[in-house]
Amino acid sequence: MARQSLQLELAERPTGAIVPGRTFRQRRVAAPTEADLQDGQVLLECLYVSFDPAMRGWLDDRRSYVPPVQIGEVMRAATISRVLASRSARIRAGDIVTVPMGIREVGIASEDQVEPAPPALLSAGGKMTDLLGVFGLTGMTAYFGMLKIGEPKPGETVVVSAAAGATGSVAAQIAKIAGARVVGTAGSDEKCRWLTEELGLDVALNYKDPDFKAKFKQATPKFIDVFFDNVGGEQLDMALGRANAFSRFVMCGGISQYNAESKSGPRNFNSIISQRIKMQGFIVFDFAKEYSTARAQIAKWLGEGKLKRRETIIKGGVAASDEAFKQLFQGGNIGKLLVEVKNPDEVSRL
Amino acid sequence: MARQSLQLELAERPTGAIVPGRTFRQRRVAAPTEADLQDGQVLLECLYVSFDPAMRGWLDDRRSYVPPVQIGEVMRAATISRVLASRSARIRAGDIVTVPMGIREVGIASEDQVEPAPPALLSAGGKMTDLLGVFGLTGMTAYFGMLKIGEPKPGETVVVSAAAGATGSVAAQIAKIAGARVVGTAGSDEKCRWLTEELGLDVALNYKDPDFKAKFKQATPKFIDVFFDNVGGEQLDMALGRANAFSRFVMCGGISQYNAESKSGPRNFNSIISQRIKMQGFIVFDFAKEYSTARAQIAKWLGEGKLKRRETIIKGGVAASDEAFKQLFQGGNIGKLLVEVKNPDEVSRL
Repeated sequence: MARQSLQLELAERPTGAIVPGRTFRQRRVAAPTEADLQDGQVLLECLYVSFDPAMRGWLDDRRSYVPPVQIGEVMRAATISRVLASRSARIRAGDIVTVPMGIREVGIASEDQVEPAPPALLSAGGKMTDLLGVFGLTGMTAYFGMLKIGEPKPGETVVVSAAAGATGSVAAQIAKIAGARVVGTAGSDEKCRWLTEELGLDVALNYKDPDFKAKFKQATPKFIDVFFDNVGGEQLDMALGRANAFSRFVMCGGISQYNAESKSGPRNFNSIISQRIKMQGFIVFDFAKEYSTARAQIAKWLGEGKLKRRETIIKGGVAASDEAFKQLFQGGNIGKLLVEVKNPDEVSRL
Repeated sequence: MARQSLQLELAERPTGAIVPGRTFRQRRVAAPTEADLQDGQVLLECLYVSFDPAMRGWLDDRRSYVPPVQIGEVMRAATISRVLASRSARIRAGDIVTVPMGIREVGIASEDQVEPAPPALLSAGGKMTDLLGVFGLTGMTAYFGMLKIGEPKPGETVVVSAAAGATGSVAAQIAKIAGARVVGTAGSDEKCRWLTEELGLDVALNYKDPDFKAKFKQATPKFIDVFFDNVGGEQLDMALGRANAFSRFVMCGGISQYNAESKSGPRNFNSIISQRIKMQGFIVFDFAKEYSTARAQIAKWLGEGKLKRRETIIKGGVAASDEAFKQLFQGGNIGKLLVEVKNPDEVSRL
């Protein structure tokens, strides 16, 4: 019997949060085979899918940095995949690659979408799933956002929201490496303990704490020089209220607003003028030419033990996607969230 | 009988708009005299007071770029004044100077607060009131905000809100000089005609027009590269919705929000990330070292006829302050708003 491939398709655009069983449809299709390949294409099977807050934005039908996913299309996602067959000169069957193949078990991609895993990174203390984590788009986002836009200086106060997330946890540690005093916010006491005890942040605050606002103020006695924002909403407003003159606001994400049916902007907006804030958005793709430099630096920090990371891996394959989205938007994960579609140690077949 | 001086004092902090007869108190005091001067001080009589939207912000008791005006203090304001007597080596009686003396007829200032009118500027097509207009803080704000933060390039689309105001009208013309396509918004058809027919803007839109939103979209077919914001609120939101990738948002003012009892931020906030917007606030004082360069350039443009300006002068002296604030926040003025406290041609007496 021919191999089948389970895939996740967009069924209906959500107005607020992703609705399990309704926003997406799981469909089993005949898997493509080597016979379907054209020159320059590769046949892939997915090992891990990256689940990231940015995915929610790709579901809205509006002008953005990438076109929205269309109804009926396979949900866009970055993956670690194994090459089953290749008609590309530079990619070989058996290679482990990263590829934005979407949430599907088996697929075809053109060689220019496929990035082979650099063996040097993995030997320098890295592991396969780091390709989507510290060496992947979330790691790159943290690196360029913090260093190119935040530009923390020794002794400055840096605040990172959602600091226990895949991007926030790397961004916060890079600020520590740069010599800043770092305050992180997160959604549980367990996350906060990880941030201070394992990652070495100076202060971690649980935003669900009834005294969060007062503690946020206490934790920023010399105000905020860099705010790395993954959350938006109320926390962004608080940071604007505590912004130092000439502070930099790195606008990375706004997870508190992604699922909101009615968006609201920060009320303390006038601080942008009175404190001369530079508030800058960015998309990691803009720095693609510098990824290799960033990865080499991150590999070095990993090897030196200066950078730590954690991941939350959900088993269950494509069928576990609804569960993964739920964890992602309810803050269930610590560090990088992945779904294991296939155990890399299992034997593959064409 | 000794000379008297009428002055405007803060009586009560407004929660929303300035309330005529209540926010401020007019008080007649004995004017200071030459005998009151200490070394390094000058005695001044006010000719013109500058009325600027930023003054509203100085009334709120919150952390900002300058301390708030205290209850009972004379209202802070920039003025053109004449030196009646001097105990400063570098300032002479009879000099025309700019000085932040506040809203009062006669006052004392220390020499480091006083800036003598540069004769070169006035001879290059300038006139005395330009010292508060194109050569004053509003002109400097337009110059540095547009060129240092907005950085318009030839062919780009620049949108200026409150483009018929003192700062907006200069900012919009500087963008034209830089080769941009310039769209301005204003609050009356008369202002819009001035913007297109006199100042040469490409499009001017009346924000009170019921079709404003649709026209704003039509006027920005290639989206917005630079948004110079004096208004905030709804117009800022619309600009975020039409922002081009890598656009610059020059956060100069937010007059629509200054009097709001409940502030609201922009809802289209996510555009900052998706369009990689750099949104930057600034205060003109940060560029003080470069004022002379800017003034020389502005004088040159005035002389060449490339830069035009208009002013609205309210007569009636300090007593007309309530009327001036009313016009300022209801959009009554075109160009720079001044109150004439004393006709410069009238004879002075000590």
